[in-house]
Amino acid sequence: MDRAAAETMDLADPLARHRVQFTAADEDGPIYLDGNSLGRPSQAVTEALADALRDWSDNLVGGWSRWIDLPATVGDRIGRLIGAAPGQVIVCDSTTVNLYKLAAAGLAARPDRRVVVADADDFPTDRYVLQGLAAATGCELRLLNGGAIDGLDVDALEAAIDADTALVCLSHVNFRSGARLDVAGVTEAAHRRGALVLWDLCHSAGAVPIGLDQAGADLAVGCTYKYLNGGPGSPAFLYVRRDLQTQLRQPVWGWFGQRDQFAMGPRYEPETGMARFLAGTPPVLGLLAVDAAAAVIEAAGIPALWAKSQQLTATLVDLVRSRLEPLGATLASPSDPARRGAHVSVAHPRAWPWCRALTERRLVVGDFRPPDVIRLGPAPLYTRYVDVFDAVERMASVLEAGVDDTLDRPRVT
Amino acid sequence: MDRAAAETMDLADPLARHRVQFTAADEDGPIYLDGNSLGRPSQAVTEALADALRDWSDNLVGGWSRWIDLPATVGDRIGRLIGAAPGQVIVCDSTTVNLYKLAAAGLAARPDRRVVVADADDFPTDRYVLQGLAAATGCELRLLNGGAIDGLDVDALEAAIDADTALVCLSHVNFRSGARLDVAGVTEAAHRRGALVLWDLCHSAGAVPIGLDQAGADLAVGCTYKYLNGGPGSPAFLYVRRDLQTQLRQPVWGWFGQRDQFAMGPRYEPETGMARFLAGTPPVLGLLAVDAAAAVIEAAGIPALWAKSQQLTATLVDLVRSRLEPLGATLASPSDPARRGAHVSVAHPRAWPWCRALTERRLVVGDFRPPDVIRLGPAPLYTRYVDVFDAVERMASVLEAGVDDTLDRPRVT
Repeated sequence: MDRAAAETMDLADPLARHRVQFTAADEDGPIYLDGNSLGRPSQAVTEALADALRDWSDNLVGGWSRWIDLPATVGDRIGRLIGAAPGQVIVCDSTTVNLYKLAAAGLAARPDRRVVVADADDFPTDRYVLQGLAAATGCELRLLNGGAIDGLDVDALEAAIDADTALVCLSHVNFRSGARLDVAGVTEAAHRRGALVLWDLCHSAGAVPIGLDQAGADLAVGCTYKYLNGGPGSPAFLYVRRDLQTQLRQPVWGWFGQRDQFAMGPRYEPETGMARFLAGTPPVLGLLAVDAAAAVIEAAGIPALWAKSQQLTATLVDLVRSRLEPLGATLASPSDPARRGAHVSVAHPRAWPWCRALTERRLVVGDFRPPDVIRLGPAPLYTRYVDVFDAVERMASVLEAGVDDTLDRPRVT
Repeated sequence: MDRAAAETMDLADPLARHRVQFTAADEDGPIYLDGNSLGRPSQAVTEALADALRDWSDNLVGGWSRWIDLPATVGDRIGRLIGAAPGQVIVCDSTTVNLYKLAAAGLAARPDRRVVVADADDFPTDRYVLQGLAAATGCELRLLNGGAIDGLDVDALEAAIDADTALVCLSHVNFRSGARLDVAGVTEAAHRRGALVLWDLCHSAGAVPIGLDQAGADLAVGCTYKYLNGGPGSPAFLYVRRDLQTQLRQPVWGWFGQRDQFAMGPRYEPETGMARFLAGTPPVLGLLAVDAAAAVIEAAGIPALWAKSQQLTATLVDLVRSRLEPLGATLASPSDPARRGAHVSVAHPRAWPWCRALTERRLVVGDFRPPDVIRLGPAPLYTRYVDVFDAVERMASVLEAGVDDTLDRPRVT
């Protein structure tokens, strides 16, 4: 693999034409390989926000006759990207709040079962939410010994799910290693034991095919600010399979979840469909930004994005091995492409000062994850093969020059 | 009171110069008296969102080194408008979610007490959240028989708070009648019986002085899209008095509430200060819009806004009495200015078709609240005295012409 080969791949890339939609692509600045943390803004988002401001200004409170449908309509658009038929996805709140709502609803739906199974290596907020619910309900949180680069051992997972398991909560793609689980296989294993599965799709939505309906999935949440490019802290989504919707009740009883909302009746009676998983007034500007951003993803198509993502990560893995392993780094993601998501991690004893040097010298933006990993997330919609090639070259040159490991740890990475 | 008198009052209005900051003020369109439902956008918000998009585009994930402080810094700005010293207010989530977090935290802090006292006439989401928490915890929700135009009877309220009361949850200003409670007096009465008070400030923040610290208030929540003009569904705020902060734990354990967040430690340990009341990733674009919008309010100053608001509502009450009561309408707000907030409601047996005719003919935008009320919310920052005068004239002329009461009730009002 040399730079000319990367250039050839870019010339053949059917998605290359989409890159121009993203503002300030990195011709001169650092190479951005952190779209798995915060995606780039597209021109569509800028236009959507300008339209939203005009709409607010012109129509004032009258805009609500349309805005009120946004959690459902933007949800249906996200649904098309994650394999969910209409009427099963809404966009609202943060991933954390949505995870809380659905995990609590799932636990309450299996009152005779007292165990939640999760991965100790999953993203902190997932573990914390489940710890909080376990403390509040007296359930046991059974954390599997994660941390393996190849992801959770599926046999160990199946062994951990028993007749007392109410809920299994897992990330489709692990936030650190990028290891990817089989949604259909895990769901089936949990269903055999009568448990529900709640998927965290933060690190796959918008890049990796998920196929929730096809997998018979129960519940899912995810953010919209990574591959979906909705903007910092943009509202999250949640999925509930159609036939489960009326069986589940979430704990945050708010007026947007109320049947016949504007009758403002005395007692809370949840809506029959997905609106029962709403709580308060939805964030209109954020929803319109997500809608515009997700439309760009939808136009490119998940199959094409996933095909390119796999080529990007395969290229990255090859380059990590050939160029960075001789310098003391190691691949910290599955070597088997069938077990990988859309990002690749590299471990190094001096990962933190290495990452910081790359950022400060405006060479490469990845992100550091404790204790020793740099994540590299090429976004198939705007990352080129030459970006991946050049990024690894820059990473190698910094290691070759030596990094100072006396630096303090970051406050924010 | 005639139109010339209203014009004279506008000429003497020290806040008149602020009106130009609001986009599309209603020279030709309907008169907007629904700023208590959704405030107008100001030029400052448009600029803040343009800046935010540029920042996101230029700095990408690096923007988080600044954005991460927004819940606290925007919270401190809101704090200055509601009488709270720094470090006691954060902006995040929706009012509903914040009410849930704080009501749950308050209940958990008084485990030996099993009663929540609230007003049956308060905004639906408040009642629904408390119903949900009562169902989950087995607490009793003691709803006072609200609905009086002059607001909750304070003697009845005091009698309802007993040694088993954990939490009293009330609106500072009632969403329908505009009746205003005495924050300090109610707080003191609750404290005498050992209960905490959680205030809903949605209908007062940004227009009415609140003085939380001075009142010895415990907890409060509020929205930012009414008088604060933050935009449809903009993020809400919450207040926890400083000395209560470490005593309270909220139920949604997320990574933004975690001490040393980016160490991503195995167990949830809440932050010592206000950050423990955060949950997930905060909505950056929404926060920046709120900050800009609230800065406009801060520049005008709550004392000046409240002085004008009182004059606006007094004018409106006079005009309702002189012009609309002869046509069958009645004042549905306290006649005593000492008991009023910043909006005035008018009842009429045909309130719904009357309100709809006013909107459809582009005459006046108020909002209908079941069963028979039109709310009129003059916003002191951009509503003129002539707007109030003309609005009542237009309302009278529609009643004089007759309204059709066969119309269906609205889906959204």
